Amino acid sequence: MRALILRSWSIASALALLLLLPVGANQAAAQADPLPSWNDAAPKTAIVEFVGRVTKDGGPDFVPPAERIAVFDNDGTLWSEQPVYFQLAFAIDRIAALAPQHPEWSDTQPFKGIIEGDLKAVAASGEHGLLEIMAATHAGLTTDKFGDIVDSWLAGAQHPKTKRLYTGMVYQPMLELLGYLRANGFKTFIVSGGGVEFMRRFAEKVYGIPPEQVIGSTGVVKFGIGADGKPALTKEAKIEFVDDGPGKPVGINRAIGRRPILAFGNSDGDQQMLEWTAAGSGARFMGLVHHTDADREWAYDRTSHVGKLDKALDEATAKNWTVVDMKTDWNAVFPPKP
Amino acid sequence: MRALILRSWSIASALALLLLLPVGANQAAAQADPLPSWNDAAPKTAIVEFVGRVTKDGGPDFVPPAERIAVFDNDGTLWSEQPVYFQLAFAIDRIAALAPQHPEWSDTQPFKGIIEGDLKAVAASGEHGLLEIMAATHAGLTTDKFGDIVDSWLAGAQHPKTKRLYTGMVYQPMLELLGYLRANGFKTFIVSGGGVEFMRRFAEKVYGIPPEQVIGSTGVVKFGIGADGKPALTKEAKIEFVDDGPGKPVGINRAIGRRPILAFGNSDGDQQMLEWTAAGSGARFMGLVHHTDADREWAYDRTSHVGKLDKALDEATAKNWTVVDMKTDWNAVFPPKP
Repeated sequence: MRALILRSWSIASALALLLLLPVGANQAAAQADPLPSWNDAAPKTAIVEFVGRVTKDGGPDFVPPAERIAVFDNDGTLWSEQPVYFQLAFAIDRIAALAPQHPEWSDTQPFKGIIEGDLKAVAASGEHGLLEIMAATHAGLTTDKFGDIVDSWLAGAQHPKTKRLYTGMVYQPMLELLGYLRANGFKTFIVSGGGVEFMRRFAEKVYGIPPEQVIGSTGVVKFGIGADGKPALTKEAKIEFVDDGPGKPVGINRAIGRRPILAFGNSDGDQQMLEWTAAGSGARFMGLVHHTDADREWAYDRTSHVGKLDKALDEATAKNWTVVDMKTDWNAVFPPKP
Repeated sequence: MRALILRSWSIASALALLLLLPVGANQAAAQADPLPSWNDAAPKTAIVEFVGRVTKDGGPDFVPPAERIAVFDNDGTLWSEQPVYFQLAFAIDRIAALAPQHPEWSDTQPFKGIIEGDLKAVAASGEHGLLEIMAATHAGLTTDKFGDIVDSWLAGAQHPKTKRLYTGMVYQPMLELLGYLRANGFKTFIVSGGGVEFMRRFAEKVYGIPPEQVIGSTGVVKFGIGADGKPALTKEAKIEFVDDGPGKPVGINRAIGRRPILAFGNSDGDQQMLEWTAAGSGARFMGLVHHTDADREWAYDRTSHVGKLDKALDEATAKNWTVVDMKTDWNAVFPPKP
């Protein structure tokens, strides 16, 4: 019977490989903390409890996977936004690079201010100045060419304070949250005031969010056949849609067509997105990142020029939304340096 | 040793269940024709050959799953579009239902023509009349309310010629194609001139395409807090974006942010989408449904008011895109009646 015994042993080994090891791996995964950068505090508990409820098959709050839509603001929610939105930092660097071809900029604001490093003058040019900066740096290019320029910038530009690449200033706890949600059948989206063609250049690699799940502000783009006979899409100097504030539920409706069950933001620009999410039926999760950590990141809220968090903080408090205190709720802010 | 023999037998059985049956099932799936409504003709061969090439791991034309983007026009490509676009049929029915509340319509075109069944008068009101119809039937409602109205209509309205529900006039071969592509790792999208909020009411159930993968024309939508204190999105009587002709590559860029590798249309309104798809690098598939079957569906092309196919047909012929002759290439047009 030795052959049979051997055979049964080898079958058993095969079974172990097929059955026991995967089970062991699953158990290990279930036991490992999927949110290690989150301290054991109320926000983490609320997240885990919410995910448990909506994924419990047969439970009263069960949500089918197709409806597990989670939306995240980007600037200040998934990565930093100080001292200026990183897309504006990109535009400023781009103005400097283009300046030699634009001698007229040397005495025209906001370009003069950028070239001379006088950001007060840039700020004084207001919204009109900002639109001029965006037009000068984002328009008149094909979408392909613009993408290449963004890629180069992201690959080399360093944040003035941390000296990290900008894509190194994403929040480690939020990366874990995105992964945790996806592992639980959620589809994760970015819904940001940032430009959609800017964010898509890194969202997939950095956040695991594919281009078709990135919703943002858009400029007008035109289709045409180029001089080379090839079709091209060209970016024009005209805003099409601002995906901020009341624009966020509109953008969600237009691009997703389903109401999210989880929304995370960090500023008053996210208030309507959170309200829209909250107003659906069934279990809901509304979260705000509160920047309270001047040592590891920045501390700002009600009076900040960038990422002002005032009315949305009041509403979150009144309605028991989850407010993440960055300083006490996160044991890490950025990923380890590579 | 009986216990051991039994045990080894039961292990073997378990192994069979784990290994042999799935292999058998895979073989059966591989042998079953995934496109049974397609005749063994050039279009079917081209589709199967294309899918084989882009999914062959290590092959020269391999495309990673995340980049397997397939886009489909809706009207005339996934379902019929005669004698009028089905969304217009919906609007016409809606005008009739609303007429008692609008006595002024009885002497105003295009409403008078609709109420009196005088479609020539409606047609004579031109694009302006069409916009009036869309405004009267699609605007001033919350998105939720509009969705409910579309649902009711889809559940009951019958096509005048076939007496089927409109959702029963989807093309069986295209349903098979959508499923075949998804089984091969493709992500399938609708890119249609139709209204996105109309199409989303049936696209998931009928085509297996979730709302976030439906791209279409949009009207302006506004966020506001209703009298009941709840946030609402209200549809306004203003066109935001027309996802047709040169608008299709723009819509694809805005909503997907990746160039499709497969595109299917049926009219000149799809020409730019096909051109945009064709201009990418690597393996590509461009297809047109040619309506050649007056018996089972309709026959129309170069001079049709609805779904005119003229320039795109010439380009398809010149560039060897796949043209599906409905009459000879499909052995079924609609699904079996339920």
